[in-house]
Amino acid sequence: MAARQAWRDYILQPDLGNLGNLGATIQTTLVMLENQQAGPRSPCKPSDLRSLIRAIEICPDDGVPLPAVLSDLNERVWAHCVLPNHPACAAHFHPPPLTPAIVTEVAIAATNQSMDSWDQAPAGTELELHLMSWLGSALGLPESASGVMTSGGTASNLLGLSLARSRFAKDNGHDVLANGLPAEATSWRIVTSDQAHFSIQRAASQLGLGSSSVVTVPTEASGRMDLGALDAVLQDLHARGLHVIAIVATAGTTDLGAVDSIDAIADRASEIGCWFHVDAAVGGAFVLSDQLLPLLAGVDRASSVTVDFHKLWFQPFNASALVVRDATDFDMLKVQSSYLDRGDEPEGIVNLVGRSLDTSRRFDAAKVVASLRTLGRRSMGAMVEHLVDLTQCAADEIEATSTLRLIAPVNTVTCVFDQIGGSPETLRLAQQHLFERGEAVIGRTFVKDRHALKLTFVNPLATRRDVRNLVHEVASELNRVSSLVGLT
Amino acid sequence: MAARQAWRDYILQPDLGNLGNLGATIQTTLVMLENQQAGPRSPCKPSDLRSLIRAIEICPDDGVPLPAVLSDLNERVWAHCVLPNHPACAAHFHPPPLTPAIVTEVAIAATNQSMDSWDQAPAGTELELHLMSWLGSALGLPESASGVMTSGGTASNLLGLSLARSRFAKDNGHDVLANGLPAEATSWRIVTSDQAHFSIQRAASQLGLGSSSVVTVPTEASGRMDLGALDAVLQDLHARGLHVIAIVATAGTTDLGAVDSIDAIADRASEIGCWFHVDAAVGGAFVLSDQLLPLLAGVDRASSVTVDFHKLWFQPFNASALVVRDATDFDMLKVQSSYLDRGDEPEGIVNLVGRSLDTSRRFDAAKVVASLRTLGRRSMGAMVEHLVDLTQCAADEIEATSTLRLIAPVNTVTCVFDQIGGSPETLRLAQQHLFERGEAVIGRTFVKDRHALKLTFVNPLATRRDVRNLVHEVASELNRVSSLVGLT
Repeated sequence: MAARQAWRDYILQPDLGNLGNLGATIQTTLVMLENQQAGPRSPCKPSDLRSLIRAIEICPDDGVPLPAVLSDLNERVWAHCVLPNHPACAAHFHPPPLTPAIVTEVAIAATNQSMDSWDQAPAGTELELHLMSWLGSALGLPESASGVMTSGGTASNLLGLSLARSRFAKDNGHDVLANGLPAEATSWRIVTSDQAHFSIQRAASQLGLGSSSVVTVPTEASGRMDLGALDAVLQDLHARGLHVIAIVATAGTTDLGAVDSIDAIADRASEIGCWFHVDAAVGGAFVLSDQLLPLLAGVDRASSVTVDFHKLWFQPFNASALVVRDATDFDMLKVQSSYLDRGDEPEGIVNLVGRSLDTSRRFDAAKVVASLRTLGRRSMGAMVEHLVDLTQCAADEIEATSTLRLIAPVNTVTCVFDQIGGSPETLRLAQQHLFERGEAVIGRTFVKDRHALKLTFVNPLATRRDVRNLVHEVASELNRVSSLVGLT
Repeated sequence: MAARQAWRDYILQPDLGNLGNLGATIQTTLVMLENQQAGPRSPCKPSDLRSLIRAIEICPDDGVPLPAVLSDLNERVWAHCVLPNHPACAAHFHPPPLTPAIVTEVAIAATNQSMDSWDQAPAGTELELHLMSWLGSALGLPESASGVMTSGGTASNLLGLSLARSRFAKDNGHDVLANGLPAEATSWRIVTSDQAHFSIQRAASQLGLGSSSVVTVPTEASGRMDLGALDAVLQDLHARGLHVIAIVATAGTTDLGAVDSIDAIADRASEIGCWFHVDAAVGGAFVLSDQLLPLLAGVDRASSVTVDFHKLWFQPFNASALVVRDATDFDMLKVQSSYLDRGDEPEGIVNLVGRSLDTSRRFDAAKVVASLRTLGRRSMGAMVEHLVDLTQCAADEIEATSTLRLIAPVNTVTCVFDQIGGSPETLRLAQQHLFERGEAVIGRTFVKDRHALKLTFVNPLATRRDVRNLVHEVASELNRVSSLVGLT
């Protein structure tokens, strides 16, 4: 029995009375993670990394002592991370996480609340609701606004568009959740810009409408939705008897960092009377800065808004939110379940499963609140402003070279460029070589009909000097590759 | 500038060089969380808790020192958790988390890998793939099997059924992701038992098929799908020209813990040639036990399987997996994106976004691997067996009382019962009183046309004595309530 119940050592006492004992093990883990890599990633080859990791026996019959497990994971896994804290890690919206959030992750895991029902997360439910109200208010939405945390911007966009689908169906006498899409759904359209995130198409695919139901509006050179083109698209759809169930504006596009003219797009949505979703996965953080807030003008007119705390709010994954203008909109989603959300709970009890496409769900709101309270709005805003400044610095540096050129002017925190006279192949090789050698992690994309390299600035630790160095590193690698392939 | 960049103190150095400094703060947090509650939850009233939490200023202009933030959160939030480590917390599949997983959560947060692309999580991608292969193999699936981690069983079921929808559409000449559901989709049906989780209906709703496309098969008294009834349903659907796109078996139903006859259901799916999904969110952990493994006989014939590591594998939320029989099935889901999954990556590089309905995603696989290696299969299996034993003990104790009766015989880790001669109202009041007073967190449901109380055993710390005490506590509260409402 003693041998069989060895697992008792690995579960905390009922009152978490022995939780402090974990501290030493955590401290050892933290110290192990320190100083392992000089650059933004280890230069381990994919095939070598695979061998290293495939040698881990996942579930031996008998357990391995925890210190040995942790040290083995350290050598084989943690030593081969990409480090978003490094200034040469600038490929994606992949932020270095704030320490108050990291600390709070321990409490989130140790208490293991589940956000689907109040009786699994009483304080968790209330704090998430409080955070969602605050976010609604920061976005300028009315008091009726509320929201729910999701696993990411893709999930938030899916939820927002699912609500849009339900609303349109309901207004036309259909219960789409019960009965599925009606025949006329082939005429339903979602309108967004050609720079919107692919999760809009993906949501349409999952919702049964198909990615072809997403009509994309051309963008200006800056990447912002062209309003004239939007009007033309809407007129054309109307003329063809097609129905717009939602217009989606983007506040911070993935490649160009562009923020659509939200207010002007809201006018169109309001004229049609359709759902107006704002994908502010990137740009939601602009509410933190007086300087950047004006970019979001009109977001207070949205039906729903996606905000990713794990982007420019510097939270560890996952932490996203879908805020709706009117909390009762979630009623369209609600499924009563006999065991979880019966509808006969005492007054004041909210089971968040009624707002979510998830059931069990971790208490990510806690880390967001810990971070916002510790840093405060001024510091949070200054971080985002610093990133915008770094991006402009990168753009200036790129323009100052004789070999690189911007593909679009800088909007916010991304910078897209290519090599004068270069080929797509040169861009690919340069990006891959820098990555393989562990020197820089930069992005590569295809935007405005051109192959491009991309820098995404989400690391507030980076300085202007870091950014200039990174641009020069990229330029010189492009030169090297070009001379190898005989282009220069 | 110094004041503006105060945030530098809250971001780790590029090489995580100062990570160990976090240890002291984490230790303080751990110690604060200790010994706060005597019972499974604080008896704080919903309205009081709301006031307590609404008084938190989420984002003050200027930050508050971290120790003050943490201690305030401790008093207002963490002190009012439900503690799944407590033996009187037995309402839901809400496990006490294993300590190796809690420790690993710190590394997951600090390194902040994002699982959507290899260049944001090289080692993370390889470890998740390795874990998925192991799980496929543990389920007896062929070597072609692989999977992806998701945020929960609901998401895993959605992904499995989305693949089923794509497969059926493809086989009938439709590209449903591109073009949406064809007109004939009104004849598509998903067949599962009347005890299946509500996420099956919810998936059908989101996928545009509607919850009414889910045809439920009656269950035996035990809660297992009635195979005769299944045959009748399938014949009836066939006769009516309706098409079964998927059959879903449940390994561990939410209320009765029943495991369908997977092998026999696989026969039917194989005859029809349809997708066969097994929702083993609960029962997947039976692969850990030689004693329980036979319950899963036939799971090796599944097209896709849902397994929740955050249930009987004792992981902190979130940690679920969707395993598919053939990794190439994920190709049906893949969306090429210009910036993330371009298709021109060097050989050996997998971008997991191609398998997932999420984009950014945390590295939850790490904590699962740390736990499995530390505990080993024998201990993990013994924990699950212990829970089955506790459940039988509860059932025996219930049968031994003069006031309670089981609603169904015990299958695995849940026990459903009511009060002889009692009313739904008595059950509701007893459950709510025990919760309000912070004495016990038990479940309540409606199953087999009867209102019921439910005990769910997911806490391996609980002993037989704890379980007997809990049953007596519930019985005596039911007596008390009954006498108050004048029933006895």
